[in-house]
Amino acid sequence: MSTFTTEIAVRFRDVDSMGHVNNAVYATYLEQARAAYFREVLGRDLSAVETVLASLSIDYRAPIDLDDEAVTVAIDVPEIGTASVPMTYTIATDAGVAAEAESVQVSYDADAGESVPIPEDWRSTIREYHGL
Amino acid sequence: MSTFTTEIAVRFRDVDSMGHVNNAVYATYLEQARAAYFREVLGRDLSAVETVLASLSIDYRAPIDLDDEAVTVAIDVPEIGTASVPMTYTIATDAGVAAEAESVQVSYDADAGESVPIPEDWRSTIREYHGL
Amino acid sequence: MSTFTTEIAVRFRDVDSMGHVNNAVYATYLEQARAAYFREVLGRDLSAVETVLASLSIDYRAPIDLDDEAVTVAIDVPEIGTASVPMTYTIATDAGVAAEAESVQVSYDADAGESVPIPEDWRSTIREYHGL
Amino acid sequence: MSTFTTEIAVRFRDVDSMGHVNNAVYATYLEQARAAYFREVLGRDLSAVETVLASLSIDYRAPIDLDDEAVTVAIDVPEIGTASVPMTYTIATDAGVAAEAESVQVSYDADAGESVPIPEDWRSTIREYHGL
Repeated sequence: MSTFTTEIAVRFRDVDSMGHVNNAVYATYLEQARAAYFREVLGRDLSAVETVLASLSIDYRAPIDLDDEAVTVAIDVPEIGTASVPMTYTIATDAGVAAEAESVQVSYDADAGESVPIPEDWRSTIREYHGL
Repeated sequence: MSTFTTEIAVRFRDVDSMGHVNNAVYATYLEQARAAYFREVLGRDLSAVETVLASLSIDYRAPIDLDDEAVTVAIDVPEIGTASVPMTYTIATDAGVAAEAESVQVSYDADAGESVPIPEDWRSTIREYHGL
Repeated sequence: MSTFTTEIAVRFRDVDSMGHVNNAVYATYLEQARAAYFREVLGRDLSAVETVLASLSIDYRAPIDLDDEAVTVAIDVPEIGTASVPMTYTIATDAGVAAEAESVQVSYDADAGESVPIPEDWRSTIREYHGL
Repeated sequence: MSTFTTEIAVRFRDVDSMGHVNNAVYATYLEQARAAYFREVLGRDLSAVETVLASLSIDYRAPIDLDDEAVTVAIDVPEIGTASVPMTYTIATDAGVAAEAESVQVSYDADAGESVPIPEDWRSTIREYHGL
């Protein structure tokens, strides 16, 4: 079973007036990791992918500072639904875990305005990658 | 029992390549609503407040578009802990509910590096405001 | 001769670790003012407008702080070219001028990949609005 | 004479509804390059550096897309003043130059509220690096 990991550089703009990476930027790091996952695992551009984010939840464990320079985001897919892909994430710096998170993405037909089954080739690729 | 509400203008920059307000920007809207809450209910500047965000969870119900021009964020405090303040949020446009969310903020002594009881005057003001 | 003005709320997220609104966010304030200009003066949505930003220049005069709560952006159009619309801006807080800026937008045919004359109805509306 | 260069990953969040990297994000790329310059050339953290950005000007040459994945920012210092450091920048993708830009940073004593001479060790390091 593989865990997907990607590294994201921390930007000066990510830090807020408290001197730490702003809470909303964690969501951007997770999105950036998902974009890398879609590109590297599924061979798709996130903006071309017909999915919508249904939910996102983040547990903040430790601040991320500009000195950290980069974070590593790890993605696992614990199971796969008919129309939905749940993902679990760990955001880490050299100092350890900075956050744990979960999201659910739903395969969606924008024209019909309703969720649709995940394409079969995605399903098999995701299953194989994570050993599901 | 009062619900706190505040209006936030949608910016062109909030919208991503999918044509909708980006998922991370919802976290910024929630933060902006918290800042208004701290200023208007507690008379404090968010950056001067010794609290940290411990967790955040967002259920995305409907896209927000540039045409929506503004969102209204409603905040409730369902209960209040010794060191933590949970908040529930609804983000709405004229078209209806766009998201529901929850956060937990923890009163924190940065020098000691540990959570501390919420100041008594905050506790009483929050209780009174929400009829707890 | 009219100057177009619009008010923009300062967000907590706009402020960086120096405690002031970040330099790049000034560009977002200018863009937001342009979007309001296109909507209110020309009756168009910025994202539907076939123009590209050719240049932007900002002179930073004074810091903007979270306490400022909002900025007012004023837009003038000093002249109008065949394919380009130059704009001059002042960003102000209650404390006075925070920045002066200039931009040039070019009317552009994305399919042909070249600049095209500004639509005649825009030209006459802009001329009339600014008394050119 | 050395030109300082640094690579910055393009994020999904950098792209706006037009499908290209938003104009304000170019300013963030320039800031990120300055931060790298201060860290690598001068051994300083940008947030610890007592300078303020006095002006910024950007000529947009070509759109940057998500497919570009990363940009390279090159920084030159054409001359060095008593209290000010002008910088010229080129932002490039694999497809070529995306933007050219200039900034002026001023050495500033925040307590006194006035510009001050650039520290002598910075001056000599910058001179040496760029062969001034």
